[in-house]
Amino acid sequence: MGAPLDSAALQRLLDGSPFSRACKLAVRAVDPEQGKLTLSMPFLPNFARDAEGTQFHGGPIAALIDTAGCFALVMQLGQGAPTLNFRSDYLRPAGGALLLANAVVRRAGRTVGVVDVDVLDDADRLVAVGRGCFGTRA
Amino acid sequence: MGAPLDSAALQRLLDGSPFSRACKLAVRAVDPEQGKLTLSMPFLPNFARDAEGTQFHGGPIAALIDTAGCFALVMQLGQGAPTLNFRSDYLRPAGGALLLANAVVRRAGRTVGVVDVDVLDDADRLVAVGRGCFGTRA
Amino acid sequence: MGAPLDSAALQRLLDGSPFSRACKLAVRAVDPEQGKLTLSMPFLPNFARDAEGTQFHGGPIAALIDTAGCFALVMQLGQGAPTLNFRSDYLRPAGGALLLANAVVRRAGRTVGVVDVDVLDDADRLVAVGRGCFGTRA
Amino acid sequence: MGAPLDSAALQRLLDGSPFSRACKLAVRAVDPEQGKLTLSMPFLPNFARDAEGTQFHGGPIAALIDTAGCFALVMQLGQGAPTLNFRSDYLRPAGGALLLANAVVRRAGRTVGVVDVDVLDDADRLVAVGRGCFGTRA
Repeated sequence: MGAPLDSAALQRLLDGSPFSRACKLAVRAVDPEQGKLTLSMPFLPNFARDAEGTQFHGGPIAALIDTAGCFALVMQLGQGAPTLNFRSDYLRPAGGALLLANAVVRRAGRTVGVVDVDVLDDADRLVAVGRGCFGTRA
Repeated sequence: MGAPLDSAALQRLLDGSPFSRACKLAVRAVDPEQGKLTLSMPFLPNFARDAEGTQFHGGPIAALIDTAGCFALVMQLGQGAPTLNFRSDYLRPAGGALLLANAVVRRAGRTVGVVDVDVLDDADRLVAVGRGCFGTRA
Repeated sequence: MGAPLDSAALQRLLDGSPFSRACKLAVRAVDPEQGKLTLSMPFLPNFARDAEGTQFHGGPIAALIDTAGCFALVMQLGQGAPTLNFRSDYLRPAGGALLLANAVVRRAGRTVGVVDVDVLDDADRLVAVGRGCFGTRA
Repeated sequence: MGAPLDSAALQRLLDGSPFSRACKLAVRAVDPEQGKLTLSMPFLPNFARDAEGTQFHGGPIAALIDTAGCFALVMQLGQGAPTLNFRSDYLRPAGGALLLANAVVRRAGRTVGVVDVDVLDDADRLVAVGRGCFGTRA
């Protein structure tokens, strides 16, 4: 377990992943002491669920939840935290220019960590919630 | 509730979604009577989790699970089946040229349906399992 | 959808269920406006996971999560809310004289509702978290 | 990691847990090579969800899923396998004289294992499905 990572270091990690870079994931806020991290994801044309192109498909939302949950632990622990499993619940259709994922670490144990993620649209509506379990052994 | 959809109709629905089309999701097998559907997803450069580019990021795998689960019900019911929630468990690193998602409907009730999805790599290794709950009211 | 239920009405519903009564579930706090409900469950001898009898088995904790999630919606909606699915994550061994389950409704939609449940021991440690999806049609 | 456990050894472990013993959980079938285990749970008066007493409450069903999933790994690995998290989906009202839980190990990794559990009533109807993640380090 290393030192907590700051915003710039986390952004470099995100940009080092072709998938996260393609999704234009950006670190918006970090609070290692509270175990809180916020990522944003813009509405890219390829994220549209239907031909109208006004709503996010659930797939990119799940990917955002997965990554925000993982990175909240990476931030705190200063090491990788592979996703073991996660759950996504979709609460409302998600449109707008971008989504924000607020992740909060509920528990960082020796073997696994558990993180909650709330996903908000650009009008601050809660559109989805996620909960994941990640490996925490160095 | 309409008539079951065949492979060509399901592929048209997939292609009508910018996200599913961008992920090059393809219908590989359908069995409406058994509630079984197989989708494939190739390894696109943007799906790589790290710079080496040899492994799928968990995000596209979750999107594949979500879509395969939904489409198994769409196939059976001949109508939309919006994702309410799903769980993804990652069992092994996932590489290779493509992934196959085998979805099977466990229950198609009046309000919700439950679908299991096994994800295999091109060497037939089980790399992830998913389980989702979808709305089934017309 | 009826009027919100108060603490006494919810306790009567709990006591009308042989299972909830046997578990000695008790309503501790209600806040229909905020969608918040707290239930307690004492450590009964039959809840012990091992012969030492100092820790709750995960089974009763799951049952507590399920019931607290369901009853948070029952409180708000004034009607039944059958469990469709839920997830339990165990964060720490759970001992002590009783557990408190703090449930909060994240979304009460026309078809389903989603509720989060935090489970605390009598020293106010977070021992488990739950998230459930419940039917909300009258 | 020890030698696989047989039916009698698993039953002794179940009976050593006050909770499992109170629920009268019984080992019905074991297949360590295939990672398959079947437990049964009778309909006890305290398991009833409502005053009529004809249906199992979801709580005991969740406890059955949790225990069957855990014990499938215990059987294979010959060691403890604490529950990290699990999901229960309820498919139909569950009545009858007993429930059977068929657990199958999907993956037994070095850190965690994933197990699926199907729950059938005494008329062989699928009433619930579960999926859990358990610690596998000795």
